[in-house]
Amino acid sequence: MTGPVSPLAPAGGFPDLPPIAGVRLAAVEAGVRYKGRYDVMLAVCDPGTALAGVFTRSATRSAAVLDCQAKITDASEEAAAILVNAGNANAFTGNNGADAVSAICHAVADACALPVARVFTASTGVIGEPLPHDRITSKIADLVAGLDQGRIGDAAQAIMTTDTFAKGAGRTVMIDGRPVSIAGIAKGSGMIAPDMATMLVYIFTDAKIDPARLQTLVSDLNARTFNCITVDSDTSTSDTVMVAATGASGVDVSDSDDFAVALHAVMEELAHLVVRDGEGATKFVTVRVTGAMTEDDARKVGLSIANSPLVKTALAGEDPNWGRVVMAVGKSGAEADRDRLSIRFGGLLVAENGWVSPSYDEATAAEYMTSDEIEIGVDLDLGAGQATVWTCDLTHRYIDINADYRS
Amino acid sequence: MTGPVSPLAPAGGFPDLPPIAGVRLAAVEAGVRYKGRYDVMLAVCDPGTALAGVFTRSATRSAAVLDCQAKITDASEEAAAILVNAGNANAFTGNNGADAVSAICHAVADACALPVARVFTASTGVIGEPLPHDRITSKIADLVAGLDQGRIGDAAQAIMTTDTFAKGAGRTVMIDGRPVSIAGIAKGSGMIAPDMATMLVYIFTDAKIDPARLQTLVSDLNARTFNCITVDSDTSTSDTVMVAATGASGVDVSDSDDFAVALHAVMEELAHLVVRDGEGATKFVTVRVTGAMTEDDARKVGLSIANSPLVKTALAGEDPNWGRVVMAVGKSGAEADRDRLSIRFGGLLVAENGWVSPSYDEATAAEYMTSDEIEIGVDLDLGAGQATVWTCDLTHRYIDINADYRS
Repeated sequence: MTGPVSPLAPAGGFPDLPPIAGVRLAAVEAGVRYKGRYDVMLAVCDPGTALAGVFTRSATRSAAVLDCQAKITDASEEAAAILVNAGNANAFTGNNGADAVSAICHAVADACALPVARVFTASTGVIGEPLPHDRITSKIADLVAGLDQGRIGDAAQAIMTTDTFAKGAGRTVMIDGRPVSIAGIAKGSGMIAPDMATMLVYIFTDAKIDPARLQTLVSDLNARTFNCITVDSDTSTSDTVMVAATGASGVDVSDSDDFAVALHAVMEELAHLVVRDGEGATKFVTVRVTGAMTEDDARKVGLSIANSPLVKTALAGEDPNWGRVVMAVGKSGAEADRDRLSIRFGGLLVAENGWVSPSYDEATAAEYMTSDEIEIGVDLDLGAGQATVWTCDLTHRYIDINADYRS
Repeated sequence: MTGPVSPLAPAGGFPDLPPIAGVRLAAVEAGVRYKGRYDVMLAVCDPGTALAGVFTRSATRSAAVLDCQAKITDASEEAAAILVNAGNANAFTGNNGADAVSAICHAVADACALPVARVFTASTGVIGEPLPHDRITSKIADLVAGLDQGRIGDAAQAIMTTDTFAKGAGRTVMIDGRPVSIAGIAKGSGMIAPDMATMLVYIFTDAKIDPARLQTLVSDLNARTFNCITVDSDTSTSDTVMVAATGASGVDVSDSDDFAVALHAVMEELAHLVVRDGEGATKFVTVRVTGAMTEDDARKVGLSIANSPLVKTALAGEDPNWGRVVMAVGKSGAEADRDRLSIRFGGLLVAENGWVSPSYDEATAAEYMTSDEIEIGVDLDLGAGQATVWTCDLTHRYIDINADYRS
């Protein structure tokens, strides 16, 4: 299914990303499912690379995810490779699934002279169909021949499925007077929800960092970025976020707040890009919850609002239907007091003291809702817990895309 | 918003329900919001009536629900009245909400010579707008004058909002050689999810039963009927299920399994009718989960499937996309083993042993999906837990209805 580019796509197309010393990438047309486009990417990282990853918690996760999870805990810093295909998720494919992963990993390990334990794969696309892995392995020589530090944009294209634009984000920061760069790519537009979504994210940096420290940092930042986005509350069997730190800059960032801030920015930007490409999305929606008893409660309220079909259809209809926000707060399971909570649309105070605000003006609110970036603020006035969640609206196009995905 | 009657509405229109001795009903056009249709109903039950009720657990529940919850625990068997309006939910209306409920309860108590503590109200419709309760209180004399044992159909019409047909179900069973009758009505079509939905249900019976026993029975049956339906995962601020047993038959059913079975049947039938009127629904979908570690796990899996937008849009598209069922099992949070679960569409074995079944034929499955009644079976092969959940598909019409509800 190809369609128009999301109206929420950033202007200017794929960004110029900083080259990352120690990483080379390539993409090929392997015809796994799609024809006439890149559908397999390979990234090879030099020796000295620290890897970290977070993966879907689905009980039916894919063979590739199981393989990556088994390997990521090994704190080796040998050279490493990442191979990703689009078009077929290799999930729920029985023993064939693991066999395909093994075949690909061995072929990449041979071609790149790496240990099999340092080859990571991912597959995204249709569930339950056998992965024609020979179409991939037969292209590995071409991939290796095409490796280049400047091809991250090609890699971003190769991992797209229902995505309408390629997603990338990067930062360069000065640490101890020397530049450290981060460049990442992401795919995902449907089946997006916390616990990782049908989302694949690969971030590369030339920073030097201890693998255990990198894992902690990535896990923490993931909780505030990719685990705070939701398009449709559905969670994929393949979700993966991996970060590779080559160390080629020679700058140790293990104790650098500046690096953490920059990595957070890249992860948040990629997370937002996934929402901006949400299937059928016409509104980018930020839900800010404050004053909850706990952070967990704040997140529950945020997700309850962000996942509510009634809130999402009201957003699509540009209807400032704050009653549905009240409903979503009520059903969230979080502690809430009807008479203490307040609701804002952007800067407009909508409801307070258990009722519509005296200053609320429906026409002003309706005008605000016509924007393509909407902020819903809920203050529960009970404690210090807060969370921000990002989502999009629910439109006819979501149904067009998903009622007919496989044909 | 008025639209065509749901394609899943039962043929034959509103059923002939058995008259319930000891209950009289009436409906009027009060113009609360809608014009030219019944929008307020009153039911009056004779002395000797036992009442039971279950209500939404929303933290932002309506003033009427709070009032009912405070009153229902009183095991009085005095005469009782139930007044319901459509068009305005009287939820999140500040102190005005409770004032409106009090005004209505006092007016009904005066007109019917009942204690205020035995007057129960409900309001359904838009959230956050003050209830013009004077439009209701000014019609109470008309309502009382119109009370009649045969007007349950009028009452069913009066409580409709986005419903496309009036919903009723009844049974008469012989207990100890004497007839006992049950007749119930329901409203609800959107904001339907466990924890009670925007759903109002009133069931009347001439059975004689201890109020505490009735409450236990209703709570138990509710868990297997109204709490197992979901249209859109959204939960309302007003949901109410009340059962009134007048005792007029003189038959004590406190220990009767036959009565429990009949009440279960009425509650299940009404629950199904709510799903059949799900906003935009074109498929009535039964999700049967077996083999879970626990009943709670089975329910989690069932609801995860039934609430998944990707499953629901695939159903709308008549696509036997069992991969999305696998995804929904995986994300449910219940224990599941990819290689042990099996999936059926109707009688067709779709997947087993971690992969598509060798006997699976896509064309046969696609043909099955064209039916307007679909059954999805999931066996987890882990234990004895089972649950059945009912839902509908997610279509363009859901978005049409909800992106423009208030205008």
